[in-house]
Amino acid sequence: MKTAVMTDEARELYSRATTASLTAQLIKRGLRTRAISNIAPVNPNTPRAFGPAYTLRYIPMREDLATGAAMSDPNNPQRKAIEVVPAGHVLVVDTYGGMDVSGTFGDILVARLRVRGVAGIISDGPMRDIAELRKMDFPVFARGNAAPPSYASMLAADAQVPIGCGGVAVFPGDIVIADPDGVVVLPAAIAEEIARDAVEQDQLEAYVRQRVENGDSIIGVYPPNEETKAAYQAWLAKR
Amino acid sequence: MKTAVMTDEARELYSRATTASLTAQLIKRGLRTRAISNIAPVNPNTPRAFGPAYTLRYIPMREDLATGAAMSDPNNPQRKAIEVVPAGHVLVVDTYGGMDVSGTFGDILVARLRVRGVAGIISDGPMRDIAELRKMDFPVFARGNAAPPSYASMLAADAQVPIGCGGVAVFPGDIVIADPDGVVVLPAAIAEEIARDAVEQDQLEAYVRQRVENGDSIIGVYPPNEETKAAYQAWLAKR
Amino acid sequence: MKTAVMTDEARELYSRATTASLTAQLIKRGLRTRAISNIAPVNPNTPRAFGPAYTLRYIPMREDLATGAAMSDPNNPQRKAIEVVPAGHVLVVDTYGGMDVSGTFGDILVARLRVRGVAGIISDGPMRDIAELRKMDFPVFARGNAAPPSYASMLAADAQVPIGCGGVAVFPGDIVIADPDGVVVLPAAIAEEIARDAVEQDQLEAYVRQRVENGDSIIGVYPPNEETKAAYQAWLAKR
Amino acid sequence: MKTAVMTDEARELYSRATTASLTAQLIKRGLRTRAISNIAPVNPNTPRAFGPAYTLRYIPMREDLATGAAMSDPNNPQRKAIEVVPAGHVLVVDTYGGMDVSGTFGDILVARLRVRGVAGIISDGPMRDIAELRKMDFPVFARGNAAPPSYASMLAADAQVPIGCGGVAVFPGDIVIADPDGVVVLPAAIAEEIARDAVEQDQLEAYVRQRVENGDSIIGVYPPNEETKAAYQAWLAKR
Amino acid sequence: MKTAVMTDEARELYSRATTASLTAQLIKRGLRTRAISNIAPVNPNTPRAFGPAYTLRYIPMREDLATGAAMSDPNNPQRKAIEVVPAGHVLVVDTYGGMDVSGTFGDILVARLRVRGVAGIISDGPMRDIAELRKMDFPVFARGNAAPPSYASMLAADAQVPIGCGGVAVFPGDIVIADPDGVVVLPAAIAEEIARDAVEQDQLEAYVRQRVENGDSIIGVYPPNEETKAAYQAWLAKR
Amino acid sequence: MKTAVMTDEARELYSRATTASLTAQLIKRGLRTRAISNIAPVNPNTPRAFGPAYTLRYIPMREDLATGAAMSDPNNPQRKAIEVVPAGHVLVVDTYGGMDVSGTFGDILVARLRVRGVAGIISDGPMRDIAELRKMDFPVFARGNAAPPSYASMLAADAQVPIGCGGVAVFPGDIVIADPDGVVVLPAAIAEEIARDAVEQDQLEAYVRQRVENGDSIIGVYPPNEETKAAYQAWLAKR
Repeated sequence: MKTAVMTDEARELYSRATTASLTAQLIKRGLRTRAISNIAPVNPNTPRAFGPAYTLRYIPMREDLATGAAMSDPNNPQRKAIEVVPAGHVLVVDTYGGMDVSGTFGDILVARLRVRGVAGIISDGPMRDIAELRKMDFPVFARGNAAPPSYASMLAADAQVPIGCGGVAVFPGDIVIADPDGVVVLPAAIAEEIARDAVEQDQLEAYVRQRVENGDSIIGVYPPNEETKAAYQAWLAKR
Repeated sequence: MKTAVMTDEARELYSRATTASLTAQLIKRGLRTRAISNIAPVNPNTPRAFGPAYTLRYIPMREDLATGAAMSDPNNPQRKAIEVVPAGHVLVVDTYGGMDVSGTFGDILVARLRVRGVAGIISDGPMRDIAELRKMDFPVFARGNAAPPSYASMLAADAQVPIGCGGVAVFPGDIVIADPDGVVVLPAAIAEEIARDAVEQDQLEAYVRQRVENGDSIIGVYPPNEETKAAYQAWLAKR
Repeated sequence: MKTAVMTDEARELYSRATTASLTAQLIKRGLRTRAISNIAPVNPNTPRAFGPAYTLRYIPMREDLATGAAMSDPNNPQRKAIEVVPAGHVLVVDTYGGMDVSGTFGDILVARLRVRGVAGIISDGPMRDIAELRKMDFPVFARGNAAPPSYASMLAADAQVPIGCGGVAVFPGDIVIADPDGVVVLPAAIAEEIARDAVEQDQLEAYVRQRVENGDSIIGVYPPNEETKAAYQAWLAKR
Repeated sequence: MKTAVMTDEARELYSRATTASLTAQLIKRGLRTRAISNIAPVNPNTPRAFGPAYTLRYIPMREDLATGAAMSDPNNPQRKAIEVVPAGHVLVVDTYGGMDVSGTFGDILVARLRVRGVAGIISDGPMRDIAELRKMDFPVFARGNAAPPSYASMLAADAQVPIGCGGVAVFPGDIVIADPDGVVVLPAAIAEEIARDAVEQDQLEAYVRQRVENGDSIIGVYPPNEETKAAYQAWLAKR
Repeated sequence: MKTAVMTDEARELYSRATTASLTAQLIKRGLRTRAISNIAPVNPNTPRAFGPAYTLRYIPMREDLATGAAMSDPNNPQRKAIEVVPAGHVLVVDTYGGMDVSGTFGDILVARLRVRGVAGIISDGPMRDIAELRKMDFPVFARGNAAPPSYASMLAADAQVPIGCGGVAVFPGDIVIADPDGVVVLPAAIAEEIARDAVEQDQLEAYVRQRVENGDSIIGVYPPNEETKAAYQAWLAKR
Repeated sequence: MKTAVMTDEARELYSRATTASLTAQLIKRGLRTRAISNIAPVNPNTPRAFGPAYTLRYIPMREDLATGAAMSDPNNPQRKAIEVVPAGHVLVVDTYGGMDVSGTFGDILVARLRVRGVAGIISDGPMRDIAELRKMDFPVFARGNAAPPSYASMLAADAQVPIGCGGVAVFPGDIVIADPDGVVVLPAAIAEEIARDAVEQDQLEAYVRQRVENGDSIIGVYPPNEETKAAYQAWLAKR
């Protein structure tokens, strides 16, 4: 797999669209289950990530297979994934529904992913070495903290297969966008279109927010009726 | 419904009483289930809210009714509540036990409530647009973050009815007090009396804390025996 | 029970070993269930605690026994524990699996423990008066916040018995080490040996991290093969 | 409210359609969230109920209001609902997400509902007096058993409002159908149409089941391709 | 400890009182948290047990201590409890909040308890060898089934201490009564009085049930008003 | 993949060994996490199944992919698995941690598997058409009941990959044994040896049970000391 190709325009849209507007656009298209909630950036100063999904899947551990020694095997799917996930991709991890007793990755693996140019990490389980992760300029989204290594409760099963992450289906190549509200997973075929509409919605809502801050009622303004839409167009033209 | 009436004295008590002491006073009166735990201010710089409760109730969504378009209906109970909740009230939201996959409100609705003079928002579900909410000087207490709009998983059912919020019964007009320890819901008829006793308890505990910091044992001091109570009265008199 | 005796060397090891490496060393010895996850320091500026465990156990409350008045009894196991836990020990609390509706301790009890020279507090339930706790230079690790006093939902049953805390068996005298990744509980007999190996592992991993930051692949480096181990020894010798 | 009116044809369809086929028909129409799972008939000999929904809503209790004495109030929404729910209706109860510590109803209230000609009871919480309920020829669907009366943990708030039951939105007048697979809630406007298609699907599946029992592969047979559909029509014609 | 002493009258009351009425009597006395819900007799033909509580407490396992070999130690609290729990007592087990991955007891330990004349077993965790337990004429109340022995996830810590079972505080000597609705735990000092009132309530409710079966409304009848109470007295006198 | 090969001796052992003894033997070998608890045969008259595992994996649904129409695709992993799982194998299903809102299979798919000679079905989610399943002489182990088809909440992802089922790692070819206590998953390489030891343990425990029924204490008898073991050998010899 080579480095992810995204048009510059797509990249620009993904870098701006809020997950709040993206989910609204997804629901318009009948997709209500594309967002991971209650997930947060480990380092609050790196609150955004986006890129095509590269998936990694864990299953529950078996004591004889889940050992520190097994991590030396270059074919271990976890270690392999870390070396082959292409730059620009987001590594999305299925920790079997969020096994909360072991850390998905620690500082060394995260540092390797950062050096390799990966766009970010999403896990529905905890992270370890979080004091170190908080110092890195690299977006890691996870749920909670746990000291033990992944093999305390999990085994890496395979990579680049369809997975569930935080209850959301994720296919390799889906476009993943993460911000402080959570993580949204866009089907690749409609990702750019949805992001475009979301950016437009964000702009409209910036206008609406200004109206509301100035004292306007939300009735007719949010959602906007025809009059508000016209006023918005006028406002846009004037900018 | 007109703007909430609270005597100046009541307002002063509600602005000072800690939820920790309020719950102790409630238990003295046989009320053990008046506190919402594990709820936090979205913006840590606005760590306190109080006022009479105005309630809003959600039920689980139904796909044909829970749409963005439905939000344009001026009779939608959510939109209506936002325009009619009186200034000085706290909007308390029952999200059907804390549906954690959609945001109760986003920045526009919260901005409108702030402009309208509402005293704060309490939800047992997540919020969205939390990056924006963190910038507002307005108390919003919630559980977690979620990008999707409320209608991703919920429908507004009605307002100003008795609700449950975070497992606690809330009646319209109950006095709600929120601080970093959580949210306490006081029956209206005894709210002022309880707050008065809580403020007194807070003062006694400030004295006890000082004694403890100076090296005294808690035995006889906390809870205070007659001797400690007398010493406290002397200390009070001297201040 | 007298003040905990730890050799200076042990103390030095416990003050440095990360919980991440400690858990890896424990798994090597067949112990996978020695870490409490999703527990955090209430005050982020006091992110580390260690010492022998002194245990306190709660059971669910019974309304006639769990009252504020009952707290005056000097034989109440909670109050007694606070006065007798030896300096240098960590007070580890079993809140019956994490009853999340009442605070384990508030600011007065925590202040007393701090003054008495206790090394820290670990609870699998919430804390109260957390605004005050955040100001203290004292390590308190807990799960969440709750305004009500402990007796809102719990009764202190006894102290210095084997307990479960956050799903982990804790025996009096076990060595407890807490940092931002969580809390690890070491059997007393092997605590020093494990801490020594963990500190060594931490040092090796600092070297590995440096290699990775410099662009090395993790293959052969983490876990280290013989070549990497030799290079590490050379690096150590040069320092 | 008068006795529920359902055409004889609708009644006949509702008495036969399986909840399994009803949910498949609902998903065809974009409605995926119309079924309550893991709910079972208390008496396995009364495994089916159907009729228009009459709703009852509980909130969490407050100790001073939730007492045995309060049950004497003829305006208590629970007691009132039991006397006014029309014959032929199904009483659907929202127990605030399934409070599992108190029984929704006991044998006396259930006996009254049976005598009054009510079609059945659905609760997302437990029942009490279940030994008695198991002897009655009356369909009660619930989750588990609990000895305490409803007021041990709940307060009746109101009736005939939109509710959630087992995570499903239920509006008064919705058609409710319960069988051993669970409970399905049909929007009133499309209930008869959906039931008709479900009965047809049940018939087709009886044919498919026969084919499968005779050794046919499911490929092309289930779901049926054109050939299988034609064979089904021929089979139907012959019956 | 010698065989439990209960007066013949107390025994007779405990053998008849339903847990449904016992909980109503407890709430009258301010005790709302004395019932374990969603617990069921493993053998439905032995649906009732009562007697003074003998308590056994488990904590989470530690791999080096929780082994089959450790079961040979005659001081193992589990093994010891089984040999010393007095005849006529109910063995009540705290499985650390219901660890659902290992069976509390299997057929051999249950057979031993039955032979020893123990009155029954209550566990908030699962049982193993349930096919055998279903054949025994002995009341075992538990939650679910699990094949592994207790030491797969638990360690016996001690016996005859205050415990929590299913979220309910249980003290040694409390009177425990179990029937198909669940398990109720009565404080020893008021157990007989509560049972007497519960038996009386059961009798009144038998009368009320008869009225309701004959078509009477519940209004004024349940709860009974003065008129109904007088009619009940007349009915009692006639029997 | 061809029909599973098991020696006649292995088959005989697997047909007899209880899951209770199998788990004890597994723990002796350091494997504590090989049992699925709280899973039950849908038809209590088919309480046992065994055979090599054939695995099927679901992920959460995506609305545009999870439709009834998609079930017609012969490459749908669910439909394909049903036609290719070899006779004698047990189909083990990972429903993403037990999604409890849709039925894994209904009567037609189960009937097909039965006709094809499959040894049984294990799912960590619910089943649908359970009234029909209860009538079939075929072992289906599952958790609960749900009317909706699998695609209401799930998508079949792939088959014959390592999965988690009920929190237990399952590899294709592992030996699966199910009885009323739950489901045990044996690593293929040691399955026969473990089953042999479990059968022997079952026999010893039958002897111990007899001793206990005759009034012997468990001390020295269970676990058996040398004397008991000798008596057992004598008893065996006499049979």
